Amino acid sequence: MASSDQIQSPETTNLRLLLLHRYPKFKTMFLSKLQTRYQILDPLTEPDPSPLSGSVRVMLCVGPTRVTSETLNKYPNLECIVGTSAGFEHFDLNECRRRGIIVTTAGDSFSDDVADFAVGLLIDVLRRVSAADRFVRAGCWPVKGEFPLAFKVGGKRVGIVGLGSIGSRVAKRLEAFGCTIAYTSKRKKPNVSFPFHSNIHDLAINSDVLILCCSLTKETHHIVGKEALTALGKEGIVINVGRGALVDEKELVQFLKRGEIGGAGLDVYENEPNVPKELFGLDNVVLSPHMAVFTPVSFQVLEELFSYNLEAFFSNKPLRAQIEFE
Amino acid sequence: MASSDQIQSPETTNLRLLLLHRYPKFKTMFLSKLQTRYQILDPLTEPDPSPLSGSVRVMLCVGPTRVTSETLNKYPNLECIVGTSAGFEHFDLNECRRRGIIVTTAGDSFSDDVADFAVGLLIDVLRRVSAADRFVRAGCWPVKGEFPLAFKVGGKRVGIVGLGSIGSRVAKRLEAFGCTIAYTSKRKKPNVSFPFHSNIHDLAINSDVLILCCSLTKETHHIVGKEALTALGKEGIVINVGRGALVDEKELVQFLKRGEIGGAGLDVYENEPNVPKELFGLDNVVLSPHMAVFTPVSFQVLEELFSYNLEAFFSNKPLRAQIEFE
Repeated sequence: MASSDQIQSPETTNLRLLLLHRYPKFKTMFLSKLQTRYQILDPLTEPDPSPLSGSVRVMLCVGPTRVTSETLNKYPNLECIVGTSAGFEHFDLNECRRRGIIVTTAGDSFSDDVADFAVGLLIDVLRRVSAADRFVRAGCWPVKGEFPLAFKVGGKRVGIVGLGSIGSRVAKRLEAFGCTIAYTSKRKKPNVSFPFHSNIHDLAINSDVLILCCSLTKETHHIVGKEALTALGKEGIVINVGRGALVDEKELVQFLKRGEIGGAGLDVYENEPNVPKELFGLDNVVLSPHMAVFTPVSFQVLEELFSYNLEAFFSNKPLRAQIEFE
Repeated sequence: MASSDQIQSPETTNLRLLLLHRYPKFKTMFLSKLQTRYQILDPLTEPDPSPLSGSVRVMLCVGPTRVTSETLNKYPNLECIVGTSAGFEHFDLNECRRRGIIVTTAGDSFSDDVADFAVGLLIDVLRRVSAADRFVRAGCWPVKGEFPLAFKVGGKRVGIVGLGSIGSRVAKRLEAFGCTIAYTSKRKKPNVSFPFHSNIHDLAINSDVLILCCSLTKETHHIVGKEALTALGKEGIVINVGRGALVDEKELVQFLKRGEIGGAGLDVYENEPNVPKELFGLDNVVLSPHMAVFTPVSFQVLEELFSYNLEAFFSNKPLRAQIEFE
């Protein structure tokens, strides 16, 4: 990609772009367009470090690819990381701040899709949609008798962990089903009428369902562990569309295996793409492979956002969805 | 059940009840309570016709069990049928009207559950929840590469067929996801702002999704057939939570097999419990075994309704959820 032709091209000489890709799909989706505007340096297909490393001013970081101080050392003139992920736990933010590197995220490009999917997982776990589908496809109806009754969505007390752009969209949707909403987050939100609980235990003890929509930080790592699961109780449901490590996965698996919580809908895992095999046999669990939170429409919105940010960076304009360092 | 002890019991002599059961589960759920108040005649466990048939004044008809003029001939003094199903296509209503028999249904006892399930099926088909779960459980992640991108819920133009107690609840839920709603029904509803289409073709051609929520009548039989499916088009989705015969199932299967529509979520089938086997291999289809539209909470609401109606009948009070003959 960084052929000598391209290096000599006068249009791209001053536009340097580092692409750190993770999803092979990304190349076919966006790369050809990017190549018309930028010179691409791809560490997965070229020498790393490359002779061009010193010229890199901006990194397009695809998905939750880790960016450590070691990564940053390779690109001493990096000024900006344009991220394509809603989360930012894969960036060493302290190091970015220290070096004065601007970092952006996907902002709320995916928020509607993630919220839709969270609600889909919840209905699926409560009403056993995937399990019913499995039952029918296996030819069990009516051979194995009636399919067991499932649980009503309306009236469920839903506790949202992180009432940001995703959590608030989940709340809006579930209110239309007659669920009641409460939440916990770093601090009580102004202008939000849902009951606030200052810690996960209080939220869990007052909820039938916990939906994890928050960022993964030191504070939220394993926020749902033994204590929260115990407080949630035997019929409680955990939905995780945030990051795997928000939940103590080993504990969750034990609680599910022992029937000490009611079910779970998981789009993310602690050690992706590894999904605990003990879950595969459970009918009260719905599993999806992380990518399920994307749709082509969201990708288009995301592409607009990162394209805008790349242009803005090279034109010295303000960037969107920029992380504000605390 | 109709033992001679019970027949002689002074408390029940004048309370006669015919139970036409379909679901074995019903017996354990409600029968013992009913037996404390009524004498039960169960044609599935006793001689049919029974010597008591002439004394039957009210029938509790469980589920969509067919009641034909032949059935009615066996009970010449029947005055009332208390139904437990939301639909009424299984009753010969002309014959009931001719004989002056009152007929009641489940009213809207199930409406919330059915609406929830319809939305669950739609999210499941669009976002491929069940397919994703199958993918993960089969150990395909990441062995078989990325799971294919699914479709956004928001922005979908949803056409509701039958904007009654179920359809209007579906509309309310899907508006919260950013879908736009239109409908068709016997006639335009007053005080409803959603666009009305007078026929299925016009609705289908203006919709990305058709959700079938109407009763099965002569007019709605096969309302979604070749013409509507063609109008709906290659990316269109059909959700059926009404009755199987609302859809021309053979056509639907062909359209799905040939990729001429985008997908389907089906809780009901033309010839239950037979599900077309050709659907079992399709990833854009979600199948559930009819019973999935019930939850224990709904059953409780239903039990309250039919218990009330039975009491009301024997006390000459007005019944609830009574069918008004046209």
